[in-house]
Amino acid sequence: MTKEGIALRIAQLRQQMEREGIDAYYVVTDDYHASEYVGDYFKEREYLSGFDGSAGELVVTKGEACLWTDGRYFLQAAEQLEGTGIKLMKMREPGVPTVPEYLAQNLAEGQTVGYDGRTVSNATAEAIEKACKSLHLAYRTDLDLVDRIWENRPSLSAEKVWELSDQLTGETRAQKLGRVREYLKKHDCNAHLIASLDDIAWLYQLRGGDVDFNPVFLSYSIVLMDKAYLYANPAIFDHETTLNLQLDGVEIRPYEQVYRDIPSVLAGRTVLLSKSKVNRALFSCIPVDASVVDETSPETLFKACKTKTEVENERTAHIRDGVALTKLIYWLKTQLNGSPDLLMKRVTELDVSDRLLKLRMEQEGFLEQSFAPIVATGAHGAIIHYEPTEATNVPVKNNTFLLMDTGGQYLQGTTDVTRTVLLGRASQKMKELYTAVLRGHIRLGSAVFKRGITGVNLDVLARAPLWELGYDYNHGTGHGVGYLLNVHEGPQGIRLLEPGRKIGAPLEEGMITSNEPGIYLAGEFGIRLESLTVVQKGQETDFGQFLQFETLTMVPFDPEVILADRLTAPEKAWLNRYHETVRNTLAPFLTAEENAWLAEVTQPLP
Amino acid sequence: MTKEGIALRIAQLRQQMEREGIDAYYVVTDDYHASEYVGDYFKEREYLSGFDGSAGELVVTKGEACLWTDGRYFLQAAEQLEGTGIKLMKMREPGVPTVPEYLAQNLAEGQTVGYDGRTVSNATAEAIEKACKSLHLAYRTDLDLVDRIWENRPSLSAEKVWELSDQLTGETRAQKLGRVREYLKKHDCNAHLIASLDDIAWLYQLRGGDVDFNPVFLSYSIVLMDKAYLYANPAIFDHETTLNLQLDGVEIRPYEQVYRDIPSVLAGRTVLLSKSKVNRALFSCIPVDASVVDETSPETLFKACKTKTEVENERTAHIRDGVALTKLIYWLKTQLNGSPDLLMKRVTELDVSDRLLKLRMEQEGFLEQSFAPIVATGAHGAIIHYEPTEATNVPVKNNTFLLMDTGGQYLQGTTDVTRTVLLGRASQKMKELYTAVLRGHIRLGSAVFKRGITGVNLDVLARAPLWELGYDYNHGTGHGVGYLLNVHEGPQGIRLLEPGRKIGAPLEEGMITSNEPGIYLAGEFGIRLESLTVVQKGQETDFGQFLQFETLTMVPFDPEVILADRLTAPEKAWLNRYHETVRNTLAPFLTAEENAWLAEVTQPLP
Repeated sequence: MTKEGIALRIAQLRQQMEREGIDAYYVVTDDYHASEYVGDYFKEREYLSGFDGSAGELVVTKGEACLWTDGRYFLQAAEQLEGTGIKLMKMREPGVPTVPEYLAQNLAEGQTVGYDGRTVSNATAEAIEKACKSLHLAYRTDLDLVDRIWENRPSLSAEKVWELSDQLTGETRAQKLGRVREYLKKHDCNAHLIASLDDIAWLYQLRGGDVDFNPVFLSYSIVLMDKAYLYANPAIFDHETTLNLQLDGVEIRPYEQVYRDIPSVLAGRTVLLSKSKVNRALFSCIPVDASVVDETSPETLFKACKTKTEVENERTAHIRDGVALTKLIYWLKTQLNGSPDLLMKRVTELDVSDRLLKLRMEQEGFLEQSFAPIVATGAHGAIIHYEPTEATNVPVKNNTFLLMDTGGQYLQGTTDVTRTVLLGRASQKMKELYTAVLRGHIRLGSAVFKRGITGVNLDVLARAPLWELGYDYNHGTGHGVGYLLNVHEGPQGIRLLEPGRKIGAPLEEGMITSNEPGIYLAGEFGIRLESLTVVQKGQETDFGQFLQFETLTMVPFDPEVILADRLTAPEKAWLNRYHETVRNTLAPFLTAEENAWLAEVTQPLP
Repeated sequence: MTKEGIALRIAQLRQQMEREGIDAYYVVTDDYHASEYVGDYFKEREYLSGFDGSAGELVVTKGEACLWTDGRYFLQAAEQLEGTGIKLMKMREPGVPTVPEYLAQNLAEGQTVGYDGRTVSNATAEAIEKACKSLHLAYRTDLDLVDRIWENRPSLSAEKVWELSDQLTGETRAQKLGRVREYLKKHDCNAHLIASLDDIAWLYQLRGGDVDFNPVFLSYSIVLMDKAYLYANPAIFDHETTLNLQLDGVEIRPYEQVYRDIPSVLAGRTVLLSKSKVNRALFSCIPVDASVVDETSPETLFKACKTKTEVENERTAHIRDGVALTKLIYWLKTQLNGSPDLLMKRVTELDVSDRLLKLRMEQEGFLEQSFAPIVATGAHGAIIHYEPTEATNVPVKNNTFLLMDTGGQYLQGTTDVTRTVLLGRASQKMKELYTAVLRGHIRLGSAVFKRGITGVNLDVLARAPLWELGYDYNHGTGHGVGYLLNVHEGPQGIRLLEPGRKIGAPLEEGMITSNEPGIYLAGEFGIRLESLTVVQKGQETDFGQFLQFETLTMVPFDPEVILADRLTAPEKAWLNRYHETVRNTLAPFLTAEENAWLAEVTQPLP
């Protein structure tokens, strides 16, 4: 897009604003479902501003257009906004107002703020509208002004939906609906409104392809006590699926019809919904004679605890994924390392990423990647959200780390794994820091903890070995992961207590959570070691039920950068046991050469 | 007190209730200052019920009298209430109503609840009164009905006050008042109301003797920007102290006069106070044209971070205290252990407690004990709040643990230390559990952590080695400790995240906090290992300022029950360093025999 083109779009938007009496129009990044990744149809902020980072908000007034984004994107946004007339607002930098502060400074009493209520969660909308009220500003949320000026807007994605068999999940759709209705009863509710795509996909045992990396489909749903409505493009369901849904009392209705249905379907009912996951426009349709119970959606809680069948399948998925990544590491370490290709810089980050994707595609059950792969050489590894693209891609460097954070969607589950591999020779510092991150990973991975504990209480286990050396990482240590669903899901998490941030749910049997400490040295390199774990029951004693993590990921660590004498005896024992499991588990799927190499790198530390 | 006497007192109270139109009268345990320990004058609940546990609440209606207490006191309360007609309400047991629930079930609309507003914090009172309003009950808080019937009520304590020299604290009273006034300014306040006795004692550099174990004096205070009022019995100040206070702009006024002064002194002002520390009656006196800012009192925050002088003095206090306790342990281990006295059961818990007190009294600067000593043999050690009294006292047992949790008030600071000592022979289980508790103690004590972290994030370090074995303890891991003040103080703490419980303040340089994991096996024994620590600055790196604990307590652990092979190398190194420090530090103050023994028990683990 040219800079002039962007300026023209802003001018067109201002014409629409004037027509509707809007003094400031607010465009966010979300789709109608608060999804982490959004389809092309929803990229209004990118269309209007030319800025294509994953986070950003635009406010257009008569005189100004400003784009807010966070530290990850300051450079990129400055470049992309240059010449467009749009002002960059660096979030959380001193002197930079927040959006509400900006509105307070730039609008006069009685003026009107507008935004598309479908793109903002009800919880956020309540905060914005409270701010507007205190500033005596009016607001309108029923307008999609960008849609009116967007020429050749991509159409809404309409990829086919397919059914996940009960054999893969260990539970039928009818059983899930039964559990959800039990939960509604317990909360004295008789209706349930859902807008989050992964919750809907889990509940109906359906998967789709409307969002990159997340096998979900555009939909809303209302669950009543005796039937359920699934609002989605009817064309994406085949006849058999439609019938199967009917058998379970689920009726498919057109996607947009939910807004027209809510007033009648929810009339007089007590509706359970999560305000942070239901958009403002949906919420506005709820009739006044309905009451709302703002609670975590039962699907969010239920899907976090995988069934025994799902856990067993996840083990399979992780073995297959481990085979792919281990084969890649074998190639990196034995074929690329020291080879003319590496030394003459003929292999790039994207080459490695492509090779890994091909190896994954050879695995049974593999469907797609579970997020945009991070393959980062040297200093790129220190950029936590780095993704190699044609623009950033560089050859893999010698005598530094290659950090690879990647994952796959398999019929048997979702993987997410980070290994950091040395190519060439390592400095003492590189070894010390790799060992510290590994110790943190082992400490958390080997933790035994009491039922009822949240990840807030466990995070320090992963950080302690880093803190001892004066290092830290500026991200959480663990996030929940779906079953053939989103690679990031709640309600649990492993992170430090942060003021104002919600504390995650207690860790429960069957929850799959990542374990990913790291160290990032700007301009030098990054180290992150990530495996997925599943919570298992440990012993039950007079003091309570104890839980522990089973590590699902099956990929060796890099012994070339492990300082064995820095590990405590229990840490060493954990690592040796893990490496033995990896070796034995992967052996049947590797070549003789690969096995010989794996035996070498997984031999017990003395 | 006889059972009939109690019944008579309840009857007398009912007469007073009738006279004042009160349908339910509520008597709590607190004094007027929300103190942990209360003087005899304040023991209305004990006077009325005969129950003398440290926690309990009484509600008397026309037809019933009920006493609520918690699990620690179910047995004792049942015994003491038997025959009095007072019903025991076991707090938090299924089916037992809370006080508000009880009032809802037993009072009718329009009836009146009464209590002495001086004995209930404003925060608690707000909750009670909200409950009353929703039940359409009236309430009165200006009555002390027990006072009217209490024959020979003890008089208010009026122990002499003395000044703590600036040399001991490293800061003058004027400097402290200056810091408090800065804090008031920062919060746009021009007045400050204080009722908590340790906050007042800290601010004015005064100590007293009105509360057992806590060297504080009964008082309130109002700090204005140019002067301050100290409300206390004028007779407890000598002439010099009165003059010194005057020089710093502090005027002494009679204790009870605060209630009459507040309306005029605070008129039109913005008053900073902590609602959880100011009683309801004080709060009620605040005039309507004053505004209230409910904030942590600056004294609470300031006194938590000890000055460099205080920390240096604390080191001295802990050496002296360590000498006393180490001499006691020497006696226990070498003179008592295996001796006819032990085997013929001629030495009781109270004997040990008395001997320790005598040893402390021989130390320079020792003033009094900092809390009621816990000296618990065998199964008594498993009762977390056990204190030996004439009624519970037993001879010290052989082949089990003796748990001693004791402390002293010294001019140089406050100590609080727990050591668990084996007498006779230990089972393998005893050794395993002692070692696990020691490992938890060492893990926390050796932690390095980032500035900004609260104790919630660190607690798991102490518990992890216990959880690994299926054990846990049902108390926090660390509490703040004052400087020659209360042995329990805020605002920091080290404990797990508990729903509904406030998260402590971040750990800061100079904070003194206990480190006290334990294991309690009902009917068998208890193990607790407690040292006090002070937070010190560690390195500052690109990743932030790091902090660490310096252990102040100087008393060896018991090598007879340490399984050296269970300790990791860093744990062993910490213990060996600690024992070396203890040995070298205490040596000048011990006899040759004691030193020989100490060298033996502190020799490095292999």
